[in-house]
Amino acid sequence: MKTPWEYRYAHRTQKMGSSVIRELLKFTEQPDIISFAGGLPAPEVFPLKEFQAACNHVLETQGAQALQYSTTEGYLPLREMIARHNSRFSVDVTADNVLITSGSQQALDFIGRLFINRGDYVVVESPTYLGALQAWNAYGAQYISVPVDEQGMIVEKLEEALRFGPKFIYVLPNFQNPSGCTLSLERRMKLVELADKYGVPIIEDDPYGQLRYEGEHIPSVATLDSRYHNEDGDEYTGNVIYLSTFSKLLAPGLRLAWVIAPPQVIRKLVMTKQAADLHTSSFNQHVAFDVAKGGFLDDHVKVIRATYKERRDVMLEMMAEMFPPEVRWTKPQGGMFLWGVLPENLDAAEVLKVAVERKVAFVPGAAFHANGGGANTMRLNFSFASPDVIREGVTRLGVTLKEAFKNGKK
Amino acid sequence: MKTPWEYRYAHRTQKMGSSVIRELLKFTEQPDIISFAGGLPAPEVFPLKEFQAACNHVLETQGAQALQYSTTEGYLPLREMIARHNSRFSVDVTADNVLITSGSQQALDFIGRLFINRGDYVVVESPTYLGALQAWNAYGAQYISVPVDEQGMIVEKLEEALRFGPKFIYVLPNFQNPSGCTLSLERRMKLVELADKYGVPIIEDDPYGQLRYEGEHIPSVATLDSRYHNEDGDEYTGNVIYLSTFSKLLAPGLRLAWVIAPPQVIRKLVMTKQAADLHTSSFNQHVAFDVAKGGFLDDHVKVIRATYKERRDVMLEMMAEMFPPEVRWTKPQGGMFLWGVLPENLDAAEVLKVAVERKVAFVPGAAFHANGGGANTMRLNFSFASPDVIREGVTRLGVTLKEAFKNGKK
Repeated sequence: MKTPWEYRYAHRTQKMGSSVIRELLKFTEQPDIISFAGGLPAPEVFPLKEFQAACNHVLETQGAQALQYSTTEGYLPLREMIARHNSRFSVDVTADNVLITSGSQQALDFIGRLFINRGDYVVVESPTYLGALQAWNAYGAQYISVPVDEQGMIVEKLEEALRFGPKFIYVLPNFQNPSGCTLSLERRMKLVELADKYGVPIIEDDPYGQLRYEGEHIPSVATLDSRYHNEDGDEYTGNVIYLSTFSKLLAPGLRLAWVIAPPQVIRKLVMTKQAADLHTSSFNQHVAFDVAKGGFLDDHVKVIRATYKERRDVMLEMMAEMFPPEVRWTKPQGGMFLWGVLPENLDAAEVLKVAVERKVAFVPGAAFHANGGGANTMRLNFSFASPDVIREGVTRLGVTLKEAFKNGKK
Repeated sequence: MKTPWEYRYAHRTQKMGSSVIRELLKFTEQPDIISFAGGLPAPEVFPLKEFQAACNHVLETQGAQALQYSTTEGYLPLREMIARHNSRFSVDVTADNVLITSGSQQALDFIGRLFINRGDYVVVESPTYLGALQAWNAYGAQYISVPVDEQGMIVEKLEEALRFGPKFIYVLPNFQNPSGCTLSLERRMKLVELADKYGVPIIEDDPYGQLRYEGEHIPSVATLDSRYHNEDGDEYTGNVIYLSTFSKLLAPGLRLAWVIAPPQVIRKLVMTKQAADLHTSSFNQHVAFDVAKGGFLDDHVKVIRATYKERRDVMLEMMAEMFPPEVRWTKPQGGMFLWGVLPENLDAAEVLKVAVERKVAFVPGAAFHANGGGANTMRLNFSFASPDVIREGVTRLGVTLKEAFKNGKK
């Protein structure tokens, strides 16, 4: 007889759905649609020549090692490089504080697996990164949402959330996906203080930290936490688990990211990764190390910053010119996204339907809200499309929005 | 204050331990130890030149696509190639039946996540693949063990296990890791029949199917299941989820494997993968496709077979010569492992301690038994070491065992 698979699935799959974002990526595959929906880096900035040189060098000099099974922690020279890089920009760590993951999404999944019992509360920003919600839904998380404004998570509202006894606080302090907002220094310090007061760890997700186009670098939450605890050892043992990635600096197709955490947490994450996929591609780790080892990324990130800054500026200019005055939006100091807020009576998902007819796409913001709301919000990506395409796309979107307003006012 | 991380971890982590195998891999890093403990392919058979040509070709012709984010299902040309390959050797499928995973370990993890509720029973062979137990322990699986003999799982003992109402049956029919045994055609047919009778799906894990050194290819369980149900559609909708991998045919460092399943199961696995790591490295998928697309693997697998057959033969010869007569072992027709059985009063873990002093290592078999037992068993890998090294290693092991017997008889 036929197998009734749908009755075999585990309880945890009931909240499983296909990501709105991944489904929307299908729009980007239609060549005539201008998509601000995805979160793709500009392929123009992929360092193809450097990759090619690195692949050849790795295969000629370390091929047998790079193609073989490897340790779960990750390629030691790469972990050491990440530790050095982190010590330059943030808190002092060693390779024992570093785990290589297959993209930051995997780190989010592992954090859910390691910490979340069914029904546990997690504090998230509202809006927050959809991928984190997807990862943690599978483990039965419940969410307490703390709203963000232009200065990031409104920490004055955090203390109440902490009294729910959450497992951890999840925060994207730099140029947040989706809102583009950056957590101010003052709020970061308050966040660290409150987390310590209630004994709740912080997950700091920082994929875009290096992509700042204006303003001063703000110390990471991990750094501030370390200073707050006034540690003087040579091992990071703080209250923050920090995530970052090569996806935005090098190329997402490699699926290479890293976690920085106290060594005891890294050891638990290593056991998690053993059971999940043994280890991240040794070949990709060797190649990424080879590309990055001579300091290439220091120069390369300047190229990325210049490219994305121009695109952000063009998008902001065009929005000011083409969007109806009722729409508000953020002016991100970095990253890849900005956030539009429509009047409350408008549903961005409805606007999207018309926009797609006009061959332009974005992500309606509702899905980024763990506890509902935000139907009138939208996320726009400015890193992928070229300036000319951004001009045309924002023009189309402006027409769509003006029309939606006219209809909404009827 | 310090964060007491150990009190933050979720319930599911309590059964989490570092893999015996992964820990033993550390022995292989000591250059003076001859290790039969790992499960590493011979690096001599990695097609380095072909990889290098493929990397160059991919980066020159499809670099922007290969380094970008991609679809969760996997690179379509690669999935189509796998479907064609599978249709040649097994049941007829299309790309809609195929999901690319980051190694087979990830497929095992996803199957656990998709199917296992805490406390669910899973039927496994005894011994079985340790990585599967590791993956499913995190989801709270309980195991019913069905013993294997030289003909694989003793299906006569399966029916009783099926009356426990297990979620699925996990079987490694070809040259099983760890025992090296192959499930006979007759037993495969009985397995399919019993699974259908009780309505229990089968997970068929087949990493070594192409690595047969003697005897005739036996149809996969998926094929026999398909014939049993007498399907005539052009879509595979059977009772078997089939796993295989590029790790043994091409290189494990790529972390590339695949699942073949009914499309509705693939769709659920895709949602699982979205939340777990978005997708497997697009670069690696492009490169593997480029290496394999001209039929290269058909020739390459002959080189691997010849290499491993020689090593297996050398190991078997040397064991016959050097091992004490009380030890029995399997004669695998393929794969990478053989299985030794010591007299019941000897503990292989104790033997290992002495063996390591004599600079030779293997894996004690107890860990491969989900429900205990097997303390007197051992797994030996014959794919990694060269014939000369195998000769020396088996000689050392023979001395160790003779000594252990002498001491055991006292």
